[in-house]
Amino acid sequence: MSLLNSLRELEKEYKLTLSPLQRALLTSNGSTTTLLEAFTGKEVEVRGRQQRIIPADSRLAEELQVEHKSAISERIVHLINAESSKTLAYAISYTPIERLSTELRKDVQSTDIPIGKILKRHKLETRREIKKIGFQRDTKFTEIFGVECCIYRMYLIICNSTPLMKIEEYFPYYRDDGESL
Amino acid sequence: MSLLNSLRELEKEYKLTLSPLQRALLTSNGSTTTLLEAFTGKEVEVRGRQQRIIPADSRLAEELQVEHKSAISERIVHLINAESSKTLAYAISYTPIERLSTELRKDVQSTDIPIGKILKRHKLETRREIKKIGFQRDTKFTEIFGVECCIYRMYLIICNSTPLMKIEEYFPYYRDDGESL
Repeated sequence: MSLLNSLRELEKEYKLTLSPLQRALLTSNGSTTTLLEAFTGKEVEVRGRQQRIIPADSRLAEELQVEHKSAISERIVHLINAESSKTLAYAISYTPIERLSTELRKDVQSTDIPIGKILKRHKLETRREIKKIGFQRDTKFTEIFGVECCIYRMYLIICNSTPLMKIEEYFPYYRDDGESL
Repeated sequence: MSLLNSLRELEKEYKLTLSPLQRALLTSNGSTTTLLEAFTGKEVEVRGRQQRIIPADSRLAEELQVEHKSAISERIVHLINAESSKTLAYAISYTPIERLSTELRKDVQSTDIPIGKILKRHKLETRREIKKIGFQRDTKFTEIFGVECCIYRMYLIICNSTPLMKIEEYFPYYRDDGESL
Protein backbone atom coordinates (compact mmCIF):
# COMPACT_ATOMS: atom_id res chain seq x y z
CA MET A 1 0.00 0.00 0.00
CA SER A 2 1.34 3.46 -0.87
CA LEU A 3 2.02 5.90 1.94
CA LEU A 4 -0.74 8.12 0.61
CA ASN A 5 -3.20 5.25 0.93
CA SER A 6 -1.92 4.50 4.44
CA LEU A 7 -2.69 8.12 5.34
CA ARG A 8 -6.19 7.82 3.90
CA GLU A 9 -6.82 4.59 5.84
CA LEU A 10 -5.61 6.24 9.04
CA GLU A 11 -7.88 9.24 8.53
CA LYS A 12 -10.84 6.96 7.84
CA GLU A 13 -10.23 4.60 10.77
CA TYR A 14 -9.87 7.34 13.37
CA LYS A 15 -12.02 10.02 11.71
CA LEU A 16 -9.03 12.37 11.52
CA THR A 17 -8.39 15.25 9.21
CA LEU A 18 -4.65 15.47 8.79
CA SER A 19 -3.13 18.76 7.66
CA PRO A 20 -0.53 18.92 4.86
CA LEU A 21 2.17 19.35 7.51
CA GLN A 22 0.99 16.34 9.51
CA ARG A 23 0.86 14.19 6.37
CA ALA A 24 4.43 15.23 5.59
CA LEU A 25 5.65 14.45 9.12
CA LEU A 26 4.20 10.94 8.85
CA THR A 27 5.49 10.09 5.38
CA SER A 28 8.68 12.03 4.61
CA ASN A 29 11.88 10.05 4.38
CA GLY A 30 13.96 13.12 5.21
CA SER A 31 15.12 14.52 8.54
CA THR A 32 12.24 15.23 10.92
CA THR A 33 14.13 18.08 12.59
CA THR A 34 14.68 19.78 9.21
CA LEU A 35 10.95 19.48 8.45
CA LEU A 36 9.96 20.87 11.84
CA GLU A 37 12.37 23.78 11.39
CA ALA A 38 10.90 24.47 7.95
CA PHE A 39 7.34 24.29 9.27
CA THR A 40 7.90 26.52 12.28
CA GLY A 41 10.58 28.75 10.74
CA LYS A 42 12.41 28.42 14.06
CA GLU A 43 15.41 26.46 15.28
CA VAL A 44 14.48 23.11 16.77
CA GLU A 45 16.32 21.87 19.84
CA VAL A 46 16.56 18.42 21.26
CA ARG A 47 15.93 17.90 24.95
CA GLY A 48 17.03 14.52 26.19
CA ARG A 49 14.65 12.76 28.54
CA GLN A 50 16.43 9.47 28.90
CA GLN A 51 19.42 7.56 27.57
CA ARG A 52 20.26 4.02 28.63
CA ILE A 53 21.46 0.69 27.37
CA ILE A 54 18.86 -2.06 27.26
CA PRO A 55 19.02 -5.69 26.13
CA ALA A 56 17.11 -6.34 22.89
CA ASP A 57 13.85 -8.15 23.57
CA SER A 58 12.74 -10.60 20.90
CA ARG A 59 10.79 -7.98 18.98
CA LEU A 60 13.58 -5.40 18.90
CA ALA A 61 16.09 -8.14 18.01
CA GLU A 62 13.98 -9.14 15.04
CA GLU A 63 13.37 -5.57 13.87
CA LEU A 64 17.01 -4.55 14.23
CA GLN A 65 18.38 -7.88 13.00
CA VAL A 66 20.55 -8.50 16.04
CA GLU A 67 20.88 -11.36 18.52
CA HIS A 68 18.36 -11.55 21.35
CA LYS A 69 19.62 -9.53 24.36
CA SER A 70 22.16 -7.53 22.30
CA ALA A 71 23.01 -4.15 23.81
CA ILE A 72 20.76 -1.44 22.43
CA SER A 73 21.03 2.30 23.03
CA GLU A 74 17.56 3.60 23.86
CA ARG A 75 17.26 7.36 23.57
CA ILE A 76 14.15 9.34 24.39
CA VAL A 77 14.02 12.99 23.40
CA HIS A 78 11.66 15.88 22.92
CA LEU A 79 12.04 18.10 19.85
CA ILE A 80 11.37 21.65 20.97
CA ASN A 81 10.70 24.93 19.19
CA ALA A 82 13.73 26.82 20.54
CA GLU A 83 11.86 30.12 20.58
CA SER A 84 8.54 29.16 22.14
CA SER A 85 9.80 26.06 24.02
CA LYS A 86 6.78 24.21 22.68
CA THR A 87 7.25 20.45 22.33
CA LEU A 88 6.80 19.51 18.67
CA ALA A 89 7.66 15.82 18.80
CA TYR A 90 8.47 13.02 21.18
CA ALA A 91 10.92 10.47 19.79
CA ILE A 92 12.42 7.18 20.87
CA SER A 93 15.36 5.67 19.01
CA TYR A 94 16.85 2.22 19.40
CA THR A 95 20.36 1.66 18.08
CA PRO A 96 22.37 -1.56 18.35
CA ILE A 97 25.65 -0.66 20.01
CA GLU A 98 27.48 -3.16 17.79
CA ARG A 99 26.62 -1.03 14.71
CA LEU A 100 28.23 2.13 16.09
CA SER A 101 31.77 3.36 15.67
CA THR A 102 33.22 5.01 18.78
CA GLU A 103 32.56 8.50 17.40
CA LEU A 104 29.07 7.72 16.22
CA ARG A 105 28.26 6.13 19.58
CA LYS A 106 29.33 9.29 21.36
CA ASP A 107 26.92 11.39 19.30
CA VAL A 108 24.04 8.91 19.54
CA GLN A 109 24.42 8.66 23.29
CA SER A 110 24.56 12.39 23.71
CA THR A 111 20.91 13.34 23.83
CA ASP A 112 21.14 16.87 22.50
CA ILE A 113 21.93 16.25 18.84
CA PRO A 114 19.08 15.46 16.44
CA ILE A 115 19.49 12.13 14.60
CA GLY A 116 19.37 13.91 11.22
CA LYS A 117 22.30 16.09 12.24
CA ILE A 118 24.26 13.08 13.48
CA LEU A 119 23.80 11.34 10.12
CA LYS A 120 24.83 14.53 8.31
CA ARG A 121 27.88 15.17 10.48
CA HIS A 122 29.16 11.64 9.88
CA LYS A 123 28.17 11.80 6.18
CA LEU A 124 26.28 8.54 6.55
CA GLU A 125 24.51 7.22 3.48
CA THR A 126 21.21 5.70 4.51
CA ARG A 127 17.67 5.02 3.50
CA ARG A 128 14.53 5.17 5.62
CA GLU A 129 11.88 2.49 5.60
CA ILE A 130 8.60 3.58 7.11
CA LYS A 131 7.09 0.52 8.78
CA LYS A 132 3.97 1.94 10.39
CA ILE A 133 1.94 5.10 10.80
CA GLY A 134 -0.80 5.41 13.35
CA PHE A 135 -2.90 7.28 15.87
CA GLN A 136 -2.82 6.90 19.63
CA ARG A 137 -4.81 8.42 22.46
CA ASP A 138 -3.17 8.26 25.86
CA THR A 139 -3.26 10.53 28.88
CA LYS A 140 0.55 10.26 29.11
CA PHE A 141 0.77 12.58 26.08
CA THR A 142 -1.07 15.37 27.89
CA GLU A 143 1.96 16.08 30.02
CA ILE A 144 4.18 16.31 26.94
CA PHE A 145 1.96 18.06 24.41
CA GLY A 146 -1.03 19.39 26.31
CA VAL A 147 -3.29 17.07 24.29
CA GLU A 148 -3.82 13.36 24.66
CA CYS A 149 -4.07 12.54 20.95
CA CYS A 150 -1.00 11.78 18.89
CA ILE A 151 -0.16 10.66 15.41
CA TYR A 152 2.96 8.57 15.17
CA ARG A 153 5.24 6.70 12.85
CA MET A 154 7.80 3.97 13.20
CA TYR A 155 10.66 3.63 10.76
CA LEU A 156 14.05 2.08 10.27
CA ILE A 157 17.20 3.88 9.19
CA ILE A 158 19.11 1.39 7.06
CA CYS A 159 22.85 1.70 6.58
CA ASN A 160 25.08 -0.90 4.93
CA SER A 161 21.99 -3.01 4.25
CA THR A 162 21.26 -3.45 7.98
CA PRO A 163 19.08 -1.44 10.38
CA LEU A 164 21.17 1.21 12.12
CA MET A 165 18.22 2.53 14.10
CA LYS A 166 14.57 2.01 14.78
CA ILE A 167 12.79 5.27 15.47
CA GLU A 168 9.34 6.02 16.85
CA GLU A 169 8.09 9.60 16.54
CA TYR A 170 4.94 11.03 18.10
CA PHE A 171 3.40 14.33 17.05
CA PRO A 172 0.54 16.08 18.84
CA TYR A 173 -2.78 15.87 17.07
CA TYR A 174 -4.76 19.05 17.47
CA ARG A 175 -8.31 18.88 16.21
CA ASP A 176 -7.92 22.14 14.28
CA ASP A 177 -4.80 21.47 12.21
CA GLY A 178 -1.05 21.23 12.16
CA GLU A 179 -0.53 24.97 11.92
CA SER A 180 -0.52 25.00 15.70
CA LEU A 181 3.02 23.66 15.42
CA MET B 1 25.21 28.82 7.36
CA SER B 2 22.26 26.72 8.52
CA LEU B 3 19.47 26.05 6.06
CA LEU B 4 17.11 28.06 8.23
CA ASN B 5 19.43 31.05 7.94
CA SER B 6 19.71 30.54 4.18
CA LEU B 7 15.90 30.71 4.02
CA ARG B 8 15.91 33.93 6.04
CA GLU B 9 18.56 35.47 3.77
CA LEU B 10 16.54 34.48 0.71
CA GLU B 11 13.37 36.04 2.10
CA LYS B 12 15.24 39.21 2.97
CA GLU B 13 17.07 39.56 -0.33
CA TYR B 14 13.97 39.10 -2.51
CA LYS B 15 11.35 40.37 -0.05
CA LEU B 16 9.60 37.01 -0.08
CA THR B 17 7.34 35.47 2.50
CA LEU B 18 7.82 31.75 2.23
CA SER B 19 5.10 29.47 3.53
CA PRO B 20 5.91 26.48 5.77
CA LEU B 21 5.43 24.20 2.76
CA GLN B 22 7.77 26.24 0.57
CA ARG B 23 10.42 26.28 3.30
CA ALA B 24 10.15 22.49 3.54
CA LEU B 25 10.43 22.03 -0.23
CA LEU B 26 13.64 24.07 -0.24
CA THR B 27 15.32 22.43 2.73
CA SER B 28 14.11 18.85 3.18
CA ASN B 29 16.60 16.08 2.49
CA GLY B 30 13.80 13.62 1.77
CA SER B 31 12.00 12.75 -1.45
CA THR B 32 10.40 15.78 -3.11
CA THR B 33 7.63 13.67 -4.63
CA THR B 34 6.71 12.27 -1.20
CA LEU B 35 6.55 15.80 0.21
CA LEU B 36 4.39 17.04 -2.67
CA GLU B 37 2.06 14.06 -2.23
CA ALA B 38 1.81 14.80 1.49
CA PHE B 39 1.14 18.50 0.86
CA THR B 40 -1.50 18.00 -1.80
CA GLY B 41 -2.93 14.73 -0.48
CA LYS B 42 -2.95 13.56 -4.09
CA GLU B 43 -0.79 11.24 -6.15
CA VAL B 44 2.01 13.02 -7.96
CA GLU B 45 2.90 11.97 -11.47
CA VAL B 46 6.02 12.61 -13.44
CA ARG B 47 5.73 13.92 -16.98
CA GLY B 48 8.93 13.70 -18.92
CA ARG B 49 9.82 16.70 -21.04
CA GLN B 50 13.22 15.66 -22.25
CA GLN B 51 15.80 12.92 -21.80
CA ARG B 52 19.15 12.96 -23.54
CA ILE B 53 22.82 12.24 -23.10
CA ILE B 54 25.09 15.29 -22.94
CA PRO B 55 28.85 15.68 -22.43
CA ALA B 56 29.78 17.14 -19.05
CA ASP B 57 30.89 20.75 -19.37
CA SER B 58 33.60 21.87 -16.96
CA ARG B 59 31.10 22.97 -14.30
CA LEU B 60 29.07 19.74 -14.35
CA ALA B 61 32.29 17.70 -14.41
CA GLU B 62 33.47 19.46 -11.28
CA GLU B 63 30.15 19.19 -9.48
CA LEU B 64 29.68 15.52 -10.34
CA GLN B 65 33.36 14.64 -9.93
CA VAL B 66 33.73 13.13 -13.40
CA GLU B 67 36.07 13.74 -16.32
CA HIS B 68 35.33 16.66 -18.61
CA LYS B 69 32.99 15.54 -21.45
CA SER B 70 31.87 12.36 -19.63
CA ALA B 71 28.44 11.13 -20.70
CA ILE B 72 25.71 12.58 -18.50
CA SER B 73 22.02 11.68 -18.56
CA GLU B 74 20.04 14.92 -18.50
CA ARG B 75 16.41 14.44 -17.56
CA ILE B 76 13.83 17.20 -17.44
CA VAL B 77 10.47 16.47 -15.89
CA HIS B 78 7.36 18.12 -14.51
CA LEU B 79 5.87 16.83 -11.28
CA ILE B 80 2.12 16.98 -11.65
CA ASN B 81 -0.82 16.71 -9.29
CA ALA B 82 -2.43 13.63 -10.86
CA GLU B 83 -5.94 14.80 -10.04
CA SER B 84 -5.83 18.46 -11.06
CA SER B 85 -2.98 18.15 -13.62
CA LYS B 86 -1.43 21.21 -12.02
CA THR B 87 2.35 21.41 -12.37
CA LEU B 88 3.89 21.45 -8.89
CA ALA B 89 7.58 21.35 -9.77
CA TYR B 90 9.96 21.48 -12.68
CA ALA B 91 13.09 19.38 -12.20
CA ILE B 92 16.31 18.74 -14.06
CA SER B 93 18.60 15.89 -13.05
CA TYR B 94 22.12 15.17 -14.26
CA THR B 95 23.49 11.66 -13.73
CA PRO B 96 26.88 10.40 -14.88
CA ILE B 97 26.21 7.30 -16.97
CA GLU B 98 29.34 5.67 -15.55
CA ARG B 99 27.76 5.59 -12.07
CA LEU B 100 24.69 3.66 -13.22
CA SER B 101 24.15 -0.09 -13.27
CA THR B 102 22.20 -1.32 -16.30
CA GLU B 103 18.98 -1.57 -14.30
CA LEU B 104 19.39 1.78 -12.65
CA ARG B 105 20.17 3.39 -15.99
CA LYS B 106 16.93 2.01 -17.41
CA ASP B 107 14.89 3.63 -14.62
CA VAL B 108 16.80 6.93 -14.70
CA GLN B 109 16.38 7.21 -18.46
CA SER B 110 12.71 6.44 -18.30
CA THR B 111 11.16 9.80 -17.57
CA ASP B 112 8.02 8.68 -15.76
CA ILE B 113 9.47 7.44 -12.46
CA PRO B 114 10.24 9.99 -9.72
CA ILE B 115 13.88 9.94 -8.54
CA GLY B 116 12.78 9.17 -4.97
CA LYS B 117 10.95 6.06 -6.17
CA ILE B 118 13.95 4.95 -8.22
CA LEU B 119 16.20 5.21 -5.14
CA LYS B 120 13.63 3.31 -3.08
CA ARG B 121 13.09 0.60 -5.66
CA HIS B 122 16.84 -0.07 -5.88
CA LYS B 123 17.22 0.26 -2.10
CA LEU B 124 19.99 2.79 -2.60
CA GLU B 125 21.56 4.28 0.50
CA THR B 126 22.31 7.93 -0.11
CA ARG B 127 22.57 11.32 1.44
CA ARG B 128 21.50 14.66 0.00
CA GLU B 129 23.66 17.75 0.10
CA ILE B 130 21.79 20.96 -0.57
CA LYS B 131 24.19 23.27 -2.37
CA LYS B 132 22.01 26.27 -3.11
CA ILE B 133 18.54 27.69 -2.63
CA GLY B 134 17.32 30.68 -4.54
CA PHE B 135 14.67 32.76 -6.27
CA GLN B 136 14.33 33.35 -10.00
CA ARG B 137 12.02 35.43 -12.09
CA ASP B 138 11.77 34.42 -15.72
CA THR B 139 8.98 34.54 -18.27
CA LYS B 140 9.83 30.93 -19.26
CA PHE B 141 8.20 29.79 -16.01
CA THR B 142 4.85 31.33 -16.96
CA GLU B 143 4.25 28.59 -19.49
CA ILE B 144 4.99 25.91 -16.90
CA PHE B 145 3.40 27.31 -13.75
CA GLY B 146 1.26 30.25 -14.82
CA VAL B 147 3.52 32.56 -12.79
CA GLU B 148 6.97 33.85 -13.64
CA CYS B 149 8.42 33.69 -10.12
CA CYS B 150 10.06 30.53 -8.83
CA ILE B 151 11.94 29.39 -5.80
CA TYR B 152 14.52 26.73 -6.51
CA ARG B 153 17.13 24.51 -4.99
CA MET B 154 20.13 22.62 -6.25
CA TYR B 155 21.38 19.53 -4.48
CA LEU B 156 23.53 16.48 -4.90
CA ILE B 157 22.52 12.90 -4.16
CA ILE B 158 25.63 11.20 -2.87
CA CYS B 159 26.05 7.44 -3.09
CA ASN B 160 29.25 5.52 -2.30
CA SER B 161 30.92 8.82 -1.41
CA THR B 162 30.50 10.20 -4.95
CA PRO B 163 27.74 12.29 -6.52
CA LEU B 164 25.18 10.03 -8.18
CA MET B 165 23.04 12.95 -9.33
CA LYS B 166 22.82 16.69 -9.38
CA ILE B 167 19.24 17.89 -9.19
CA GLU B 168 17.70 21.31 -9.76
CA GLU B 169 14.10 21.76 -8.66
CA TYR B 170 11.90 24.79 -9.32
CA PHE B 171 8.66 25.48 -7.50
CA PRO B 172 6.17 28.20 -8.39
CA TYR B 173 6.15 31.18 -6.07
CA TYR B 174 2.68 32.53 -5.58
CA ARG B 175 2.49 35.80 -3.71
CA ASP B 176 -0.25 34.50 -1.44
CA ASP B 177 1.31 31.29 -0.12
CA GLY B 178 2.20 27.70 -0.82
CA GLU B 179 -1.28 26.39 -0.10
CA SER B 180 -2.08 26.94 -3.75
CA LEU B 181 -0.11 23.77 -4.40
